Amino acid sequence: MVDNLFREDLKDYESYKVEDKGCKVVLDANESFLNFPEELHEQLSQTVKDILYNRYPDAYSSKVCDLYLKYIKDFYKVNININNQNIIAGNGSDELIQMIISAFASEGDNIAIPVPNFSMYKLYGQIAGAVPVEIPLEDDFKTDVNKLSEKVNALNAKVLFISNPNNPTGTIIDDEDLIRIIEKCNCIVVIDEAYGEFYGKTFIDKIMNYDNLIVLKTCSKMGLAAIRLGFLLANNKIMEEIKKVKPPYNVNTVTQEIGALVLKHTDIIKGNINKITAEREYVINELKSINNIKLYPTYSNFVLIEIDNAEKIYNDLIKNGISVRYFGKGQLKNCLRITFGNRTENNSLISRLKENLNK
Amino acid sequence: MVDNLFREDLKDYESYKVEDKGCKVVLDANESFLNFPEELHEQLSQTVKDILYNRYPDAYSSKVCDLYLKYIKDFYKVNININNQNIIAGNGSDELIQMIISAFASEGDNIAIPVPNFSMYKLYGQIAGAVPVEIPLEDDFKTDVNKLSEKVNALNAKVLFISNPNNPTGTIIDDEDLIRIIEKCNCIVVIDEAYGEFYGKTFIDKIMNYDNLIVLKTCSKMGLAAIRLGFLLANNKIMEEIKKVKPPYNVNTVTQEIGALVLKHTDIIKGNINKITAEREYVINELKSINNIKLYPTYSNFVLIEIDNAEKIYNDLIKNGISVRYFGKGQLKNCLRITFGNRTENNSLISRLKENLNK
Repeated sequence: MVDNLFREDLKDYESYKVEDKGCKVVLDANESFLNFPEELHEQLSQTVKDILYNRYPDAYSSKVCDLYLKYIKDFYKVNININNQNIIAGNGSDELIQMIISAFASEGDNIAIPVPNFSMYKLYGQIAGAVPVEIPLEDDFKTDVNKLSEKVNALNAKVLFISNPNNPTGTIIDDEDLIRIIEKCNCIVVIDEAYGEFYGKTFIDKIMNYDNLIVLKTCSKMGLAAIRLGFLLANNKIMEEIKKVKPPYNVNTVTQEIGALVLKHTDIIKGNINKITAEREYVINELKSINNIKLYPTYSNFVLIEIDNAEKIYNDLIKNGISVRYFGKGQLKNCLRITFGNRTENNSLISRLKENLNK
Repeated sequence: MVDNLFREDLKDYESYKVEDKGCKVVLDANESFLNFPEELHEQLSQTVKDILYNRYPDAYSSKVCDLYLKYIKDFYKVNININNQNIIAGNGSDELIQMIISAFASEGDNIAIPVPNFSMYKLYGQIAGAVPVEIPLEDDFKTDVNKLSEKVNALNAKVLFISNPNNPTGTIIDDEDLIRIIEKCNCIVVIDEAYGEFYGKTFIDKIMNYDNLIVLKTCSKMGLAAIRLGFLLANNKIMEEIKKVKPPYNVNTVTQEIGALVLKHTDIIKGNINKITAEREYVINELKSINNIKLYPTYSNFVLIEIDNAEKIYNDLIKNGISVRYFGKGQLKNCLRITFGNRTENNSLISRLKENLNK
């Protein structure tokens, strides 16, 4: 009896699979390879001790939102004139992506997704009953603004999702082109800056200038993946719609408190980001010395490489305890996405790649 | 331009508002009035210190799910033969309610909600584009199984949401009637046992017996509202559909770790529940001595009372620093829902009620 209650349109739906490959060197999830200093852990631990566990969280995550705005000014050195009406917190960007789709797309509405791109836009679109339409990027994953915006408008898309820097390519669209996209597309344009810290630029200072711009941020890549804390920023009118679909007590107290404490330490975050970008420089230089690798330019904490026999090399890495991201189809058939790890981890990776490719 | 991107069907949608009334005595959110003992806070604080903040959470919340099953056996003294394939964790029941609606209801599908009931079923239904249909309960909030199931089936409802004990009435449907509902209704029947600890019974041991039964649980009412941890239990076939729509890393590491630690302490949880039910007994007895109050039987950590001038008395309580839940319309027009607090808080409440009503 129960079968006819299941959604027909999700019959063949394949959800995002998280698999533990049992590898010692994990370079597949774009995590920071650095935990925070001992003293900060000590403070986190103190903060958590005093929480009123029996009480519901602050429904508006006010303290951590305020501190996030302060952090953004500190980190990106931008002038932003935004108050906490224009920011909400979520359980990672994931929950915020779902809210955006809920707020703007009804069943059957198109959602435009240039690809390659973060895979959850499509999956959350399908779950919501919307129609995610993938629009392949140009050669070398470049964006042709005119072509893209014409397609988006022809689709009557409700939302366009752009990750900038792009996940999984690591590449960027420059400011001028991004602005042209926002101006040309007759839909909500989401700029997902999950990897913004490794690029050093943000569009948060522009949210009040456009009626259709949403910026997504996350604390996951700066070293807080464990607490699942993301932020959505937009003008008041968009925010009104988003707030309609926000679950009342979505972000728990512990996430709010830990987020708030860490975000006060821009110096520590900056220090860690610098260590990651130093590893980026090191790995990229090493990769350049290996034969038969095509490197895509990266502004992120990972790099996308293209090689013959990607599958064979992926399997060799796994066998040697190193997991990277393998896609195995479409535009990314021959690509591997490699998160930068610490020096030892990076050297293990590089030595396996040399072994396989420098023959 | 942006206005035509907003969802027409959410134009007049009123989201759940969380308002801080600035009251010292908070008896409006069905929270536990007890925090955990100092030693447990100490342990929680230690646990949190060792977390790898830079790494994503366990996508399956395996440890805390296993411990929750063990806790259920301990607390409810039931034999359950369920493994961790039949349980998932969520950010409170809220996220799990959204998953249920996502998994089973497409746009326009009916969702059956006997009312009064937990308000989020309706709101999440609307957000998902489904059609929540409210079915008023009988006199004294009793359920007529035949009438209800006929209505549910006539609606071709995909899901029926029952809170047992009911929020906000505090009343229960007995086991026999619940089973008849599950058997008669041609839809997914969700038994939300958010307040199960105060009733002492669960249907978790029955999930494998019915193809259409989902049980929802939460740690919020036992004293963990701050971490937003809920559980959904069902048979494998239902679980397959639910897992399709589950966000990959939905429950953060800190919630998982704190939940796991607290759930090992069934003794502490039981002790706190006993203190709350002792206050229930005290408050109910006191309320019985007040004129012109109709008390609904409660199996929960709150009681619903019916009085003339509910609004006036609500305002008087607020003025005196005591917040309770006021509904102000429909079946609950003259009702207040009062969470049991500690003895001092309860005495403040009772004395104000006596002042107002024993004239």
